[in-house]
Amino acid sequence: MKLWGGRFAEGPSEVFERFSGSLHFDKRLVEADVRGSQAFARALERVGILTAEERAQLVAAFDAILAESRTPAFYEGATDEDVHTLVIRKLKDRTPLADKIHTGRSRNEQVSLDTRLWLRGETERVQTLLAGLLESLVELAEKYPAAIITGYTHLRRAQAVLWPHYLLAYFEMFARDWERFDQARARINVLPLGSGALAGSGFPFDRHAIAADLGFDSITRNSMDVSADRDFLLDFLYAASVTMIHLSRLSEDWILYSSDEFGWIDLADGVTSGSSLMPQKKNPDSLELIRGKCGRVIGSLNSLLVTMKGLPLTYNRDMQEDKEPLFDAVDQTAASIEMATVVAQSVTLREAIPAKAAEEGWVVATDLAEALARAGVPFHSAHKLVGRLVLESVKAGKKPTDWTAAELTAFAPEFTAEMAALLRPAEGMKSREVPGGTGPLAVAAALKEARSRLASLRR
Amino acid sequence: MKLWGGRFAEGPSEVFERFSGSLHFDKRLVEADVRGSQAFARALERVGILTAEERAQLVAAFDAILAESRTPAFYEGATDEDVHTLVIRKLKDRTPLADKIHTGRSRNEQVSLDTRLWLRGETERVQTLLAGLLESLVELAEKYPAAIITGYTHLRRAQAVLWPHYLLAYFEMFARDWERFDQARARINVLPLGSGALAGSGFPFDRHAIAADLGFDSITRNSMDVSADRDFLLDFLYAASVTMIHLSRLSEDWILYSSDEFGWIDLADGVTSGSSLMPQKKNPDSLELIRGKCGRVIGSLNSLLVTMKGLPLTYNRDMQEDKEPLFDAVDQTAASIEMATVVAQSVTLREAIPAKAAEEGWVVATDLAEALARAGVPFHSAHKLVGRLVLESVKAGKKPTDWTAAELTAFAPEFTAEMAALLRPAEGMKSREVPGGTGPLAVAAALKEARSRLASLRR
Amino acid sequence: MKLWGGRFAEGPSEVFERFSGSLHFDKRLVEADVRGSQAFARALERVGILTAEERAQLVAAFDAILAESRTPAFYEGATDEDVHTLVIRKLKDRTPLADKIHTGRSRNEQVSLDTRLWLRGETERVQTLLAGLLESLVELAEKYPAAIITGYTHLRRAQAVLWPHYLLAYFEMFARDWERFDQARARINVLPLGSGALAGSGFPFDRHAIAADLGFDSITRNSMDVSADRDFLLDFLYAASVTMIHLSRLSEDWILYSSDEFGWIDLADGVTSGSSLMPQKKNPDSLELIRGKCGRVIGSLNSLLVTMKGLPLTYNRDMQEDKEPLFDAVDQTAASIEMATVVAQSVTLREAIPAKAAEEGWVVATDLAEALARAGVPFHSAHKLVGRLVLESVKAGKKPTDWTAAELTAFAPEFTAEMAALLRPAEGMKSREVPGGTGPLAVAAALKEARSRLASLRR
Amino acid sequence: MKLWGGRFAEGPSEVFERFSGSLHFDKRLVEADVRGSQAFARALERVGILTAEERAQLVAAFDAILAESRTPAFYEGATDEDVHTLVIRKLKDRTPLADKIHTGRSRNEQVSLDTRLWLRGETERVQTLLAGLLESLVELAEKYPAAIITGYTHLRRAQAVLWPHYLLAYFEMFARDWERFDQARARINVLPLGSGALAGSGFPFDRHAIAADLGFDSITRNSMDVSADRDFLLDFLYAASVTMIHLSRLSEDWILYSSDEFGWIDLADGVTSGSSLMPQKKNPDSLELIRGKCGRVIGSLNSLLVTMKGLPLTYNRDMQEDKEPLFDAVDQTAASIEMATVVAQSVTLREAIPAKAAEEGWVVATDLAEALARAGVPFHSAHKLVGRLVLESVKAGKKPTDWTAAELTAFAPEFTAEMAALLRPAEGMKSREVPGGTGPLAVAAALKEARSRLASLRR
Repeated sequence: MKLWGGRFAEGPSEVFERFSGSLHFDKRLVEADVRGSQAFARALERVGILTAEERAQLVAAFDAILAESRTPAFYEGATDEDVHTLVIRKLKDRTPLADKIHTGRSRNEQVSLDTRLWLRGETERVQTLLAGLLESLVELAEKYPAAIITGYTHLRRAQAVLWPHYLLAYFEMFARDWERFDQARARINVLPLGSGALAGSGFPFDRHAIAADLGFDSITRNSMDVSADRDFLLDFLYAASVTMIHLSRLSEDWILYSSDEFGWIDLADGVTSGSSLMPQKKNPDSLELIRGKCGRVIGSLNSLLVTMKGLPLTYNRDMQEDKEPLFDAVDQTAASIEMATVVAQSVTLREAIPAKAAEEGWVVATDLAEALARAGVPFHSAHKLVGRLVLESVKAGKKPTDWTAAELTAFAPEFTAEMAALLRPAEGMKSREVPGGTGPLAVAAALKEARSRLASLRR
Repeated sequence: MKLWGGRFAEGPSEVFERFSGSLHFDKRLVEADVRGSQAFARALERVGILTAEERAQLVAAFDAILAESRTPAFYEGATDEDVHTLVIRKLKDRTPLADKIHTGRSRNEQVSLDTRLWLRGETERVQTLLAGLLESLVELAEKYPAAIITGYTHLRRAQAVLWPHYLLAYFEMFARDWERFDQARARINVLPLGSGALAGSGFPFDRHAIAADLGFDSITRNSMDVSADRDFLLDFLYAASVTMIHLSRLSEDWILYSSDEFGWIDLADGVTSGSSLMPQKKNPDSLELIRGKCGRVIGSLNSLLVTMKGLPLTYNRDMQEDKEPLFDAVDQTAASIEMATVVAQSVTLREAIPAKAAEEGWVVATDLAEALARAGVPFHSAHKLVGRLVLESVKAGKKPTDWTAAELTAFAPEFTAEMAALLRPAEGMKSREVPGGTGPLAVAAALKEARSRLASLRR
Repeated sequence: MKLWGGRFAEGPSEVFERFSGSLHFDKRLVEADVRGSQAFARALERVGILTAEERAQLVAAFDAILAESRTPAFYEGATDEDVHTLVIRKLKDRTPLADKIHTGRSRNEQVSLDTRLWLRGETERVQTLLAGLLESLVELAEKYPAAIITGYTHLRRAQAVLWPHYLLAYFEMFARDWERFDQARARINVLPLGSGALAGSGFPFDRHAIAADLGFDSITRNSMDVSADRDFLLDFLYAASVTMIHLSRLSEDWILYSSDEFGWIDLADGVTSGSSLMPQKKNPDSLELIRGKCGRVIGSLNSLLVTMKGLPLTYNRDMQEDKEPLFDAVDQTAASIEMATVVAQSVTLREAIPAKAAEEGWVVATDLAEALARAGVPFHSAHKLVGRLVLESVKAGKKPTDWTAAELTAFAPEFTAEMAALLRPAEGMKSREVPGGTGPLAVAAALKEARSRLASLRR
Repeated sequence: MKLWGGRFAEGPSEVFERFSGSLHFDKRLVEADVRGSQAFARALERVGILTAEERAQLVAAFDAILAESRTPAFYEGATDEDVHTLVIRKLKDRTPLADKIHTGRSRNEQVSLDTRLWLRGETERVQTLLAGLLESLVELAEKYPAAIITGYTHLRRAQAVLWPHYLLAYFEMFARDWERFDQARARINVLPLGSGALAGSGFPFDRHAIAADLGFDSITRNSMDVSADRDFLLDFLYAASVTMIHLSRLSEDWILYSSDEFGWIDLADGVTSGSSLMPQKKNPDSLELIRGKCGRVIGSLNSLLVTMKGLPLTYNRDMQEDKEPLFDAVDQTAASIEMATVVAQSVTLREAIPAKAAEEGWVVATDLAEALARAGVPFHSAHKLVGRLVLESVKAGKKPTDWTAAELTAFAPEFTAEMAALLRPAEGMKSREVPGGTGPLAVAAALKEARSRLASLRR
């Protein structure tokens, strides 16, 4: 079924019908389409196009359609070009009032409305999933509040940090992601209805009343903009892309940490796989898939950017190509956050191993250099001096704890015996109580604060 | 069902199973999987793992599975993690010999093999579709061999060209695309089997014999490379992306040419759409969708590039994320070429309109300037002189044909009366018989050549 | 000069020095580097590492360096690996106190600080430029407050709209862009200093005081996050990408509108170019370049997304590759907005031409159909009826104004004589006074509102 | 200076001049521009526009200009819009014949010609650098011909392989890259001259003679295609992108292998960096920068794809935005290959460490399972049996070499005493002599073959 045709002498070619049909993917919007149409019926009543009785009949018919849409039979054999057409056809089957439902409404604004309604819900779902991930990170931090690991720069042991401090870095990333989704949601949650095809509706709708009916915060301000606009999808896709970047980094970290070579963490059997050929393998597939899906979501963002580039105003059919990348990005992002949450819940930290790595590497070098600086040695000289200490130790195969206080002060007069305490990483950490630092008090405070921020991130 | 598990104390979590399962998309590979496994059974026979009898049983069982796979029931309720596992499970249902089919074969190489087999076929299909598009362009050129249109630079009327000359520009583009797909095909069509998981198989397979069995041109040279490699997919995705760029330009052109403002061409009703709100609309949706899908395919290329970036050798599960972007790109590219072919077949050129545009614009300016140069005026002066002629004409509202020979020679002594003939675009065109130019003879020769090149582009 | 080396037996290879050096591009950060270091000197004074006298000496030396940096001589022959090292070397030339300036500060946080300071300024500059573009759009709207043009969907004449209504669609887009930059700015404008290399500084800095000193709104919350984070650059690059998408659409529109075929608008000579071969050409190069640069900025966003994907925490040298794409995107975006503003200021609308197009096309079809619906005809029937009217008119070569009231009512009994007024687009427009519609009152109100919103968009 | 203007009443605005000028980047093409113009002067002589004397004067003047272009003074104060204009201005300063050099040539084809000439050279340079990298990989392989390392899948120890086998996987990748560049070069190396602005030149040039003069393999076939085409740049950018993907993977591997946790390889001091804060650091910056630059090159490919999408034929000024992404990609790719070569030359393998990893992990599991299969156990059962062996060993903390032959046969009757030899990885490797496998003979043959292939990869 088609909603147009009066002007046409011939029907569409079979190739074109197949090429342009969107029902196989936009059927996801069926509930949004029905809800939006019900609100529109109420709006038509308010402007006098429908009587209360007619409106009630239509709303009831839509309810029945929505119920039917939950059965596979609903779509069986359907050849409608899109979900909106399918719903209208089903409406026609139920009531002749169907002929009035498109009064003063265009498909352009309807697609915009449906997408916004659907995506608002999905954005909130993603925000809720993100909050769940944040919670699982906090829980994993609280499980090992005093565990010491080596922090890395350049994938080289750099300085010792607390395990919760490390996890809270990801907390910050995902909290920013939550905010980005929230800002995207604000631009999604604007009512487009009343815009007509591009010039504004020819009926004096109370657009604020429709917005209130559908839970929108505000109304769009220009009808041509509505018809041309896909910014609100881009905003979602961008927020999703950055989230996936963060997840890809978490995945990379944990793939490394759970490797034979690091051996810090254990992933549960339930989130790993074996090999059909190599019997000994326990592979971190869940994390690899998350990392791989990062490409998918960035690809979807790129896809829509390319599609939108250079289009003249207002609506062009190119824009129908927004849906599949969007749907895929929503699915991949939501699934990846959920998967990461399950992985985080499954992580066991083998505390002793990273602690040993922290003791054996020269991650205390900075602590020593800064202690010298606090004692009055210009930092540049302190850095050089400790650099020399490290170089000679490495050559001699000496670990930090192989040095006694006496040897240290003998190495250079700038060292004091007290500084030898800093050869154990747990000691130097205590000097890093600056807000945001890995000092034990600072971290405990940050962890507590994270807990309380969690409460405000619920949607 | 899973093909591993001996090393595992617990099964996968439900979230992980859902997250990592690929059956819902990799079932596309079922025929390739079966064909590859049948060839592998023959290879196992050659190394003595299977008897002729066992091999025959297995091959027959695979045939039965392939037949079954064409019914929906095959997949109903299947919870196997991927199509390879599903096929093995079905095999087990039929014969205990199933336990031998994985002898010396890993899933890594099997996935590589299946994808190569499937993509070889799809690449050939795309090449055939491209040849069809090329043919439709040649036909459309032959339909109006002498029609004159204005060629554009900067979307401004530039010089007059023949309609076939314009279409042959696209012929060159799509012919290059055909070549790119052919080069991609050569890198796809290499046998990976025998590589094991990454170290090479532990059985002395005659890999060249397997290659011959499956129609491969050659064998891969390094087993770790096989396990790590997705270049052959990137090659396809790149060829597809450039093809879509070309199609997006053709679409842009024809959307313009069929607009009210240009009015050069008519698109058949069968490839256009109407509006649910605006009864007068006849929209070039087929072309818009092609142009929009360009973003989709570039997005898929980008997706896989991002996924592959920075992965350590060899196989990582991230690489499972190659399939969906690939499948989507194959579908969108093939469908877009097919759609463009149907559109090209439906185009009617309203010859008089672009011919009039060519006569009224100053597209003959270059002809005049070059005629002056042939007569000995330094080109820089000729260009300036004609520039002045155009400026004064535009100010006075004069078209080229408003000038008489006498007026022209009066305008500047460098002009001769003969040059007035050049004020009609058909005349100047005759000076452009350089190979590749729009001279009528050159174009006729190029069109004939295009026909003969078509023959060599069949796959 | 290098700020490290104590641990190294050999210096860097010449290839590596060339490959890794960033001075040739990061010298853009020199002022931010100096300002940040001056604030850091004041912070060192507050924790007792520097005396007031020493601090004053350092601040003065930095002032001198900043002044010197404005001369080309500053960089001549410099072989320092980056701008930070260059500044420190210059500082060493002036005072031995240079050895203290790195006390408790790492290059990681310094790079983050400098980039944030610099990008905050650039973001504000871009916001100011955007406000200028918005103003030029409002002015262009006010110049032709009652001009009627045809609005397009699918690049087909759709409905008549007011010229200001059309321009206000872009106002909405760029206003959203302004907001995106503002949200990016909020995430840029956070103080990272105090984070050390990744573990937090070993000195008890009052980070809020440093933030206040440098005009930051808040401080970062986790030191490892600081070391690993480039989100704030991505946020800018994304806001810039969407802005460029909008500019590419404006460019496309105006390239079309200024073409021979549309002929609606004139671009000033000052923003167009000629041809070295074709004397008659007046090309819209300014708009084409803007549209082309859209690719550049999206490329830069993509570049940094790819670079960041899959990096383990915290800092990795890969992240140095953030600067050149960022710098290029800032330049291209700012220049494009500025160029678009100049073009907008130069546009002349040839009012009569689009008005005629609106009269001759069947853009009034929707007006008629909606009038029928207001008179009680179910919209679906109204749409069909008008569709038939259009089809017969097109066949008969009749324009809307060729119909008399009598003919119209004769065509179908549903039409009334009053409806014939709607055959002129100016009439139907009056029914579109819904907020956001193209009704004359609605547009006048929206234009006034745009003026007042402009005031709030200043940075 | 501008090469057009006769038609214009006013000059360009200052903003537009700044916005559109390309001299600051396209000056890279100066030599190509001069060489192309000299060949064009010879072509003009052949069609009788220039006398032999005039041609000689022009060629000599161009030689002088080329020499001058090597001094900074050449560009000082130049305000020409592009390098082509600058060269013509310099030519005018030397000879009035300059007015003839643009006879029958457009800037569109000139830009195409210059870019092709320049890029042909750069492509050959990149191919030569790739051959150098291939050689360094072969040398690094030959240095440790019998070293055993663990090969990875999922970043988990999978099977033992020979060090040369691992390096030859990269040999295959970069050899494919070489081929991609070669195929790109073939599409670059086609003469566009004679195409005019878009319609073909108005002079009967012998295009094959010009092609021979400039070393082109063939001539383009359609003038409008020439004017519209940037495929040859995309081909280069794609080949570069895949090369960078491969380099990013090599970088990732070697960053891991040189970490404290793996400890397999040592990178020379000359390709690593230290830290300004942490004295103990030795960071693999060269490899990180290569990996980071992968994003840059993919960004450039994406940039040009976006720019080209949806452009109408033929030339549009958008296409000027091709140069900077191209130049950057050429630079980053060439520098990265060069850097990787230096790193490869600097690698020291600490043979004992990966050998020990191979002995301690259960990388021999596949060897055992395949031995069982060779002895007649169905592979599926063999896999399960060895899986159980691994699981019990891991639980008991037993390494492969902790098992005696007796214990092994006691574990399961399927094991034979001979199979115990396979508990050392060097033994199982010997069964992998299939072509492309890691068997010692197969690898030695592959290494020898690689050496001989190197000879054919010279450009």
